[in-house]
Amino acid sequence: MSLSLNQWTTRRWSLAEAVDGCVRHDLPAIGLWREKVAEQGLSESVKLLRSAGLRVSSLCRGGFLTGGGLPGEEGKRAFARALEDNRRAVDEAAELGASCLVLVVGGLPGVRPGEALPATGFTRDLAGARERVAEALAELAPYAGECGVRLALEPLHPIYCPDRAVLSTLGQALELSLPFPEEQVGVVVDTFHVWWDPRLFEDIARAGRRIASFQVCDYLHPLPEDVLLGRGMMGDGVIDFRPITEAVLAAGYTGDVEVEIFNADVWAADPDEVVATMKTRYTDVVLP
Amino acid sequence: MSLSLNQWTTRRWSLAEAVDGCVRHDLPAIGLWREKVAEQGLSESVKLLRSAGLRVSSLCRGGFLTGGGLPGEEGKRAFARALEDNRRAVDEAAELGASCLVLVVGGLPGVRPGEALPATGFTRDLAGARERVAEALAELAPYAGECGVRLALEPLHPIYCPDRAVLSTLGQALELSLPFPEEQVGVVVDTFHVWWDPRLFEDIARAGRRIASFQVCDYLHPLPEDVLLGRGMMGDGVIDFRPITEAVLAAGYTGDVEVEIFNADVWAADPDEVVATMKTRYTDVVLP
Repeated sequence: MSLSLNQWTTRRWSLAEAVDGCVRHDLPAIGLWREKVAEQGLSESVKLLRSAGLRVSSLCRGGFLTGGGLPGEEGKRAFARALEDNRRAVDEAAELGASCLVLVVGGLPGVRPGEALPATGFTRDLAGARERVAEALAELAPYAGECGVRLALEPLHPIYCPDRAVLSTLGQALELSLPFPEEQVGVVVDTFHVWWDPRLFEDIARAGRRIASFQVCDYLHPLPEDVLLGRGMMGDGVIDFRPITEAVLAAGYTGDVEVEIFNADVWAADPDEVVATMKTRYTDVVLP
Repeated sequence: MSLSLNQWTTRRWSLAEAVDGCVRHDLPAIGLWREKVAEQGLSESVKLLRSAGLRVSSLCRGGFLTGGGLPGEEGKRAFARALEDNRRAVDEAAELGASCLVLVVGGLPGVRPGEALPATGFTRDLAGARERVAEALAELAPYAGECGVRLALEPLHPIYCPDRAVLSTLGQALELSLPFPEEQVGVVVDTFHVWWDPRLFEDIARAGRRIASFQVCDYLHPLPEDVLLGRGMMGDGVIDFRPITEAVLAAGYTGDVEVEIFNADVWAADPDEVVATMKTRYTDVVLP
């Protein structure tokens, strides 16, 4: 198991700078974001990664597949747009040789991430939204299979259920993945999202080789006003990492451990110091 | 199924005022808080409730049972104090004739509700904290049985796992209750806390007559800065109530439906208007 820098942790860095940073700090892998790849250019990104010899532990992200739950033509258009965007994300993941494409499946149809509820034009049909995700996956998984890309379903903390992911537990992600070959659809274990789950250890064992990505960061308490930024450096929050790392290893996971932190203080700090701290904390609190 | 006013919804009202309010608005039941009962005096409260002919749908709350997870003598003292306080709460519930005593089990040992993590003196041992709850329950359930009081385990939304309740899902609460007779230990279904749970409907059916209390309020989006106050009037948030109400009824629940709202705007409003709105919304969005 090796350490990987998810480039959103050092958000100020461009892709080129993040690649240089990984090399400078002896990290063998990097987790990429589509926005950063687009800024650098896809083929230029591939060149930089190859010449640095870096593995791409994941590409973030596809998903937002629930819009089809809106009524009538609007729903149909939203569903088609989401599929098209996700096929492009699969193509990019293939080009980059990413170990997986992370899917954040989307919230209630018509609810926009981080925004207030609209007066009309959204639905509270949570069960229906979850069905839309399964339908979209049935379209995308075979395409990903053809492209040699593994989709990785990411359950998000229930606090994000209204607007970002109706996929709320590892068990639910696992069940959604089971109809597909494990090389086509896996699941993400992100400590921030799943640390509280009373079924976590049972579901990690059950997931086994379906675990496509292991992401670590701490859960801060109290959460900041923008709950999206409550992801902290390992050791700064409430998570006991070692038992989770041990369980993921025992399940047969052989991939990289990605550190993905969304945090105003971390983003304001010198990225080289952030990476140095990340390496120390990884050894001190994450590794068994 | 009848509507009950949890008195924290009209927090400005004293117990006497809340009892009058229930009578004025034709509500047959009220959910009480120990603080409010203490302000009014226990025997005076009993008198007021009897003369008004009100049922007490629940008493909030006992719990905070995890302090025993602190090391050494400190842990032992915290555990003994918690048991003592909970026995007093059972006595009060018996005196008030409450249908159940709601237990909010407590968070990680040493983490105080709503406060920042202390520099030292807390533990990240979540599994251990959950074991402490089971141990405390083994002490309290027989005592509650002797007093004719039913304990009601309340799973809280995972956002409160660090500081208020390591009990995070209905399924987990149900499993914790199973070693005890169902008249001694039941579970609470509070829509705010469980609406997101992919196993909700399965677990409501499994809980059956173990459901000791059904509480409703909406889940606001986005949550306010103080996440404790994200409980909204039914219809103001993202919850689809009817399927949940139907499932609770189908499980055999015959108790009251309590409306418990923690919300700065609701608390600032005229309590009589709040109760009137609550009655309308109950009919419009909660009842099947």
